[in-house]
Amino acid sequence: MNFADRLVAACAAKDSVVCVGIDPRLDAIPAELLQSAIRDQGETPEAAASAVLEFSKRVIDVTAEDAVAVKPQVAFFERLGPAGMQAYHDVIGHAHARGLLVISDIKRSDIGSTAEAYADGHLGSIVIGSKVVFPWRTDAVTVSPYLGSDGLRPFIREAMRHQGGVFALVKTSNPSSVELQDLKVDGRPIYERVAAWLAEHAPDLMGDSGYSSLGAVVGVTFPQELERLRAMMPRNILLIPGYGAQGGTAADAAPAFNDDGLGAIVNASRSVIFAYGGSNVTGDWGRAVAVAARKMREELNRVRK
Amino acid sequence: MNFADRLVAACAAKDSVVCVGIDPRLDAIPAELLQSAIRDQGETPEAAASAVLEFSKRVIDVTAEDAVAVKPQVAFFERLGPAGMQAYHDVIGHAHARGLLVISDIKRSDIGSTAEAYADGHLGSIVIGSKVVFPWRTDAVTVSPYLGSDGLRPFIREAMRHQGGVFALVKTSNPSSVELQDLKVDGRPIYERVAAWLAEHAPDLMGDSGYSSLGAVVGVTFPQELERLRAMMPRNILLIPGYGAQGGTAADAAPAFNDDGLGAIVNASRSVIFAYGGSNVTGDWGRAVAVAARKMREELNRVRK
Repeated sequence: MNFADRLVAACAAKDSVVCVGIDPRLDAIPAELLQSAIRDQGETPEAAASAVLEFSKRVIDVTAEDAVAVKPQVAFFERLGPAGMQAYHDVIGHAHARGLLVISDIKRSDIGSTAEAYADGHLGSIVIGSKVVFPWRTDAVTVSPYLGSDGLRPFIREAMRHQGGVFALVKTSNPSSVELQDLKVDGRPIYERVAAWLAEHAPDLMGDSGYSSLGAVVGVTFPQELERLRAMMPRNILLIPGYGAQGGTAADAAPAFNDDGLGAIVNASRSVIFAYGGSNVTGDWGRAVAVAARKMREELNRVRK
Repeated sequence: MNFADRLVAACAAKDSVVCVGIDPRLDAIPAELLQSAIRDQGETPEAAASAVLEFSKRVIDVTAEDAVAVKPQVAFFERLGPAGMQAYHDVIGHAHARGLLVISDIKRSDIGSTAEAYADGHLGSIVIGSKVVFPWRTDAVTVSPYLGSDGLRPFIREAMRHQGGVFALVKTSNPSSVELQDLKVDGRPIYERVAAWLAEHAPDLMGDSGYSSLGAVVGVTFPQELERLRAMMPRNILLIPGYGAQGGTAADAAPAFNDDGLGAIVNASRSVIFAYGGSNVTGDWGRAVAVAARKMREELNRVRK
């Protein structure tokens, strides 16, 4: 089933547009998780990866009722070396087991034949001898547009083959996104050029829901731009980062939704997954995470219909 | 020692500006390597990763005399799942053991606090309990500028701490690089904006050689742009992809070099590492790879002084 359709169905079934960002920063996860892993495996990347995996699984478990998707940020796994990448792989499997869609925040891009390798591995399959293997098996990925369309097309092709989704960076949530993305070409910012391309190619991955699995990343930290980009890309699913720790509020996110209350999911990472406070927390830290996800869901539901 | 200084010293010692791109495409490496790995490990990602590692190590061994650096393209390792990432890690170690500099072609970028995680992991170190660990320990990375300077600065900071290098994408070698990179803002293409930023920040990573470890990726497939970008960024090391299979020649690469014959390294992947022809090759396929690297070195030496 088409990724956008699966996402829309999950939003309806759970009455939610929440995406939980799995950004397991080693210095912010409960310290007792790392200490316990070190007791078993020593002060090794394997111990760090185990702690990060345990943390991520628990976050997934306690937010699965309120979230439609999780967005693992691969940087926080990659930071731990090969063992971290195994943990990242296992996080995807765990989220699937809990019925969540997985959007891998990889922001990859490269020339066409290399982009194909990324696309195969993350969204699709590879052939080894006579066997077909799905190396990462995620549902959707984020991609960067700096290399132009031949860096994006391989991801779209793989998404077509495997009912996946592709979210291209349009207007990112960070302060310096203005430096390149807002430069004006013939009176129009670069990010609108990217948006126009995505709107034009939305039909390539259109679902029965009327939404396309070719999505766009638009930061909630720029609400005016968000409103305009929603209008420019009415059928592309928007992935909206920047909620919570980066300063974005539910009111800021409101323009992301169409009149049907759909068309976007909002991601929070730090404000939800570290809702328990400092890493010296003990006891049932998952409770605070669950509460934060529930609160986010309710706040967003108030503004979207 | 500063990365640019190490690179300049290697260019002088080996009389070479060759960078060999380690792009181990599973369907292009000698089939007997994969068959042998499958006999030992079954039709698994682990077997594929072993074959790719064996291939990469042999390529490194036979080109180490003629190349100053290798550029592993992480996509072809990442495509194989977690086992592929372990192979990528081991390739870096092998290249170092052969005295080569390693430029990891990762094209990463993200918002500041996430870019830090990539930068720590690839260029720097992480702390696990009381231990300092270097997860990937490469010499330099490629990064994408779409998110602006706060996505680049963490890489520059880590490069400063650990004598690393950072190559930002300026003008990539693929045909559709024109779509975004060539858009004109106030009469000047976007890629020149990026180049101007890199030239301005070159002093941050300046070496005693007069070259900066803050480098730029400029495709050899656009020789006119290359000439202008060389002039705009006189002290930034240029990493020039697109040689060989993508159509670039030594004559096209000539404008990349300063009057001292330095300031750039040229990368070839397919035309060197697959110089033996089809994957059905048997016997000493490494010989053809060595010959291709030697030929490339000589061709480039003729145009750079």
